[in-house]
Amino acid sequence: MIIVNFKTYREATGSNAVRLAEICEQVAKKTGAGITVAAQAADVRSVADFVSIPVFAQHIDAVDYGAHTGATLAEALHEAGASGSLINHSEQRLELRQVDACVKKLKSLGMTSVACAANDEEGMNIARFGPDYIAVEPPELIGGAVSVSTAKPELISNSVKKIRCNVLVGAGIKNGNDVAIAKKLGARGILVASGIVKAASPERALTELAEAMK
Amino acid sequence: MIIVNFKTYREATGSNAVRLAEICEQVAKKTGAGITVAAQAADVRSVADFVSIPVFAQHIDAVDYGAHTGATLAEALHEAGASGSLINHSEQRLELRQVDACVKKLKSLGMTSVACAANDEEGMNIARFGPDYIAVEPPELIGGAVSVSTAKPELISNSVKKIRCNVLVGAGIKNGNDVAIAKKLGARGILVASGIVKAASPERALTELAEAMK
Amino acid sequence: MIIVNFKTYREATGSNAVRLAEICEQVAKKTGAGITVAAQAADVRSVADFVSIPVFAQHIDAVDYGAHTGATLAEALHEAGASGSLINHSEQRLELRQVDACVKKLKSLGMTSVACAANDEEGMNIARFGPDYIAVEPPELIGGAVSVSTAKPELISNSVKKIRCNVLVGAGIKNGNDVAIAKKLGARGILVASGIVKAASPERALTELAEAMK
Amino acid sequence: MIIVNFKTYREATGSNAVRLAEICEQVAKKTGAGITVAAQAADVRSVADFVSIPVFAQHIDAVDYGAHTGATLAEALHEAGASGSLINHSEQRLELRQVDACVKKLKSLGMTSVACAANDEEGMNIARFGPDYIAVEPPELIGGAVSVSTAKPELISNSVKKIRCNVLVGAGIKNGNDVAIAKKLGARGILVASGIVKAASPERALTELAEAMK
Repeated sequence: MIIVNFKTYREATGSNAVRLAEICEQVAKKTGAGITVAAQAADVRSVADFVSIPVFAQHIDAVDYGAHTGATLAEALHEAGASGSLINHSEQRLELRQVDACVKKLKSLGMTSVACAANDEEGMNIARFGPDYIAVEPPELIGGAVSVSTAKPELISNSVKKIRCNVLVGAGIKNGNDVAIAKKLGARGILVASGIVKAASPERALTELAEAMK
Repeated sequence: MIIVNFKTYREATGSNAVRLAEICEQVAKKTGAGITVAAQAADVRSVADFVSIPVFAQHIDAVDYGAHTGATLAEALHEAGASGSLINHSEQRLELRQVDACVKKLKSLGMTSVACAANDEEGMNIARFGPDYIAVEPPELIGGAVSVSTAKPELISNSVKKIRCNVLVGAGIKNGNDVAIAKKLGARGILVASGIVKAASPERALTELAEAMK
Repeated sequence: MIIVNFKTYREATGSNAVRLAEICEQVAKKTGAGITVAAQAADVRSVADFVSIPVFAQHIDAVDYGAHTGATLAEALHEAGASGSLINHSEQRLELRQVDACVKKLKSLGMTSVACAANDEEGMNIARFGPDYIAVEPPELIGGAVSVSTAKPELISNSVKKIRCNVLVGAGIKNGNDVAIAKKLGARGILVASGIVKAASPERALTELAEAMK
Repeated sequence: MIIVNFKTYREATGSNAVRLAEICEQVAKKTGAGITVAAQAADVRSVADFVSIPVFAQHIDAVDYGAHTGATLAEALHEAGASGSLINHSEQRLELRQVDACVKKLKSLGMTSVACAANDEEGMNIARFGPDYIAVEPPELIGGAVSVSTAKPELISNSVKKIRCNVLVGAGIKNGNDVAIAKKLGARGILVASGIVKAASPERALTELAEAMK
């Protein structure tokens, strides 16, 4: 499973989001890899409208229907076409009890939950809530130029061992070799963003990762 | 100007949001009043797609294009069809410097800014940033059953005097009489939510306010 | 299988189409019956966007990508979200060779084909093209007030016998009793329009038919 | 006025239609020229959703709300976002009385009517119905490689003289020079299709025509 996080990049906003999602869909068809895009709330409906691969939200708030002006409501995203959501991304942290509530909420809506964890300890805490996936972002690898494969592959194997959940690798994936190592060490997939969204050729960059995932 | 804040009410989410916005549009046409709806980010595109009255966002984050997973980006909402946004609603508070940044951002996008203020002092502080409107929510009136007209009309006249900006009354509006008094005391409009969204007949409730606004 | 043909009725155009499709979806969920809506080309995308029951087109032209101004292109409807189409409806007749081409086209796109036939003879001719369904409209029953059940049930059994294809009954269905008889005589479903679209309560009218279909 | 007729070209269907319309919008902004796109019925809503330049339908049927399965209803296209329509295109001929009805229908909906005419005589007949524009397609120039400017510029000046209506040139426009001549001879605009839609660079091709139109 490859999740392409569109964040709020210009290259992945509005009609650009539709376009990029279509590229992701083509790569998914071509390679047979499972590819999911995580779009902004404002874009979920049109992206889900134009592609048939899964579309996730990037975040939900731990609220229900009611008086919550400006909140990001899972029910609204679900109706707009999202089949899952990231939660607790390092750029959108929640409290642990909110992560719990969000996992439950997504489950009740039949949506896939991908909870992010800053490290193995947080990952183990979150695993108790039973999300579908936990994406671990080894702090040593976030935003840097270092590949997980050339840095510390044991970061992944440790996470996989400690966290009793399907683990996604959420940082340090730069190329197909990183994917291959992550997979070999037990990861069930990866979470990528700028490496695809801001690539000179998103199609080529994603194809490399998708081929390595097979 | 009447802004109907859809919040995350079930009656104003997804296709219900489209339906309610169409009712608001009909009342606008019938009465000639200026009516705007503030929809959830996930619903802005479809609501804007089906009605021709202005559609606002309920909130924007003080961020630009970039790595901001789960953030509510004004540019995305604008492209989705929003022509303005609430900011700093009591259910989605921002820091003062963020309010400043959001007002500037909306202005640069040609969008209308409606900044909420908890009281006159905050309103005066925010007025310096030059938003198009400031919606004051007299704390004595929030969420209660008390009408501004039967309670303290001077709350409105004080706000209008002190805040050098177009003032909207954001709490305590229960009926046409409240609207008439608010208008008489210098308010340029009102911000309503459950009074319309959860009314037995939103059409009748909104028509009463719209008629009083003329 | 119940197909609700929206035609170009005002009650089933634009946002009304979305609303009616949602009612059909609710009846489908409530009764467990298979219900499909056939929307205008201009409405297919938004209807398919808001409901998860199958959405069909009402017509396709026997053309491919190219210079065909104003034509109704199956590929465009498919991309917009249609999973099937009526063809050769009595209000939109095609030549036999065009019916053949349209059946082939729909098949190649993975879309369901429902070819209409004015009588058993035309039905037998069309059956050779291998559509998924043939909807027979007994001429005696079109647009009249007569129920197929009180008129000539043998019209249905004859069609079912003669036409080697899944037969839908496309006229004379007024109530649950008609459905029950059609089903008993071998029909695989029905094609209805004004009886649902223009009913005082489409939900009640469709529920009656859906219950009888079980 | 430049109308880009998307026809049913693959390059102008579905998400490609949105993309191409965005390119047209960019050229309109860059050059200041008035550019309109004519999209398939199934695509009008999403194209109108993503661009702010006028979106036209390619055809309407001379029908009203009612039992017209598969018909192209102006009201539905209007609600989907079309602000005008081509009628009587050479690939979608109507009878004269239908052209009359369609012009009236578009007028009543506040939509712009562009009636096509095969020659000056038909143009003069249609002019009596009072459409906003008449697009003349000199039969000598349709689909060929010949430029109107190098062929018979007098075809245009004759049409402009004879037809008492705003005339658009609908065939034989290959380059900026053709546009300049058409404009000089009194045409109010042009109707183009494959020259833009199937160009190696639609942006460059359209920019050339738009610059010449100024």
